[in-house]
Amino acid sequence: MAEDCTVVFALYPGVTQLDFTGPLEVLARLPGARTLLASVAGGELHADPGLRLAGLVRLADVPRCSVLCVPGGMGSIEAMEDASYLAELRRLSQGADFVASVCTGSLLLAAAGLLSGRRAACHWGSRNFLASFGATPDSARVVRDGNVFSGGGVTAGIDLALTLMAEIAGRSYAEAVQLAIEYAPAPPFDSGRPESARPEIVAAVEQRFEGILARRAGAVQRAVAALG
Amino acid sequence: MAEDCTVVFALYPGVTQLDFTGPLEVLARLPGARTLLASVAGGELHADPGLRLAGLVRLADVPRCSVLCVPGGMGSIEAMEDASYLAELRRLSQGADFVASVCTGSLLLAAAGLLSGRRAACHWGSRNFLASFGATPDSARVVRDGNVFSGGGVTAGIDLALTLMAEIAGRSYAEAVQLAIEYAPAPPFDSGRPESARPEIVAAVEQRFEGILARRAGAVQRAVAALG
Repeated sequence: MAEDCTVVFALYPGVTQLDFTGPLEVLARLPGARTLLASVAGGELHADPGLRLAGLVRLADVPRCSVLCVPGGMGSIEAMEDASYLAELRRLSQGADFVASVCTGSLLLAAAGLLSGRRAACHWGSRNFLASFGATPDSARVVRDGNVFSGGGVTAGIDLALTLMAEIAGRSYAEAVQLAIEYAPAPPFDSGRPESARPEIVAAVEQRFEGILARRAGAVQRAVAALG
Repeated sequence: MAEDCTVVFALYPGVTQLDFTGPLEVLARLPGARTLLASVAGGELHADPGLRLAGLVRLADVPRCSVLCVPGGMGSIEAMEDASYLAELRRLSQGADFVASVCTGSLLLAAAGLLSGRRAACHWGSRNFLASFGATPDSARVVRDGNVFSGGGVTAGIDLALTLMAEIAGRSYAEAVQLAIEYAPAPPFDSGRPESARPEIVAAVEQRFEGILARRAGAVQRAVAALG
């Protein structure tokens, strides 16, 4: 690990905010960390839900990074077909020590051609799309394949970031950060995975996702074709 | 619960971003929710670490809200002595259906005179300061006392928000949101509370907090005096 530990969050309009704010809270505490929120256009960006960000740098202006983190979200459907965005992911991943994704961010890595032949995590509702890109969907909360760390849906980003932190800075360091942010989660219900949620809850959420998944399926098909 | 469900996050410079981005991810999904990020000055604000926010509304411009959520952070040391900020907390709490805090946000509620005689949670490192304001520190992850819901440090905001959501919109609704954001946390280590972390980790974090706690102790003393 170089002394300069630049962590880049590659954002896009409609990114899910907790997909990157969770890891940001952890990874900003890496020794010597410099965190950058970046997008293709730079400047302002609306994250979902309800967060308006300012001061983003342009991805093209970042020469390299130690950690490239790619969050997911509704906006990833459009980002999956944004050639400029995907080109930046390819470029930055080449010089990075670690590449990370949260939620449907792994579909963006896949659309950039970076997950072929690799295992990866993804939001449970969209996980199977990974196979279209020649990646192997994995239902684990955090998946490591080489220098690529991927997490499941949204909140998995915190688990992912602590796992990555232990790899970079050691287990004791990560444990101290976990204590500092009091990460001793106690969900009021056991409904965070389709395997544990009540069937009628799973059905309701799947129904709500239907339209999104149809749109995502189309984008995946076109992204696979674009990869050639 | 009124049809108009306005959720206000009362921010200030140096607020810990995950203290409010966690609850925001959940509470923005309340039925009919309108979430507002607000501060005394409005406009832009730096949250800690590494988040520059734009488009904040002025707290004084919010006539009322259903849920008032007060996050913590290093900046809460200064906010605890900001008479304008505390006055807005008092005003908005009066018309709110629910008042919530995350982490050291409960010290801000206390400094506003809103926790006298109440039980509340707080970040483990600053929890005892609640007693100076006549509140009872509680080590639970999420504490409810009347219409005040308080959470422990930083990441407790997600547990708090799901608990509050169940109260407002029902358990099934909250379970569906938990599934949508795949909140099935799997921390890589059992180091999120001083009771479970290794003693040398607790000692290291306590040492790192020393300067902050000394500053906070001074601010608490003055805030108590100001309350009269």
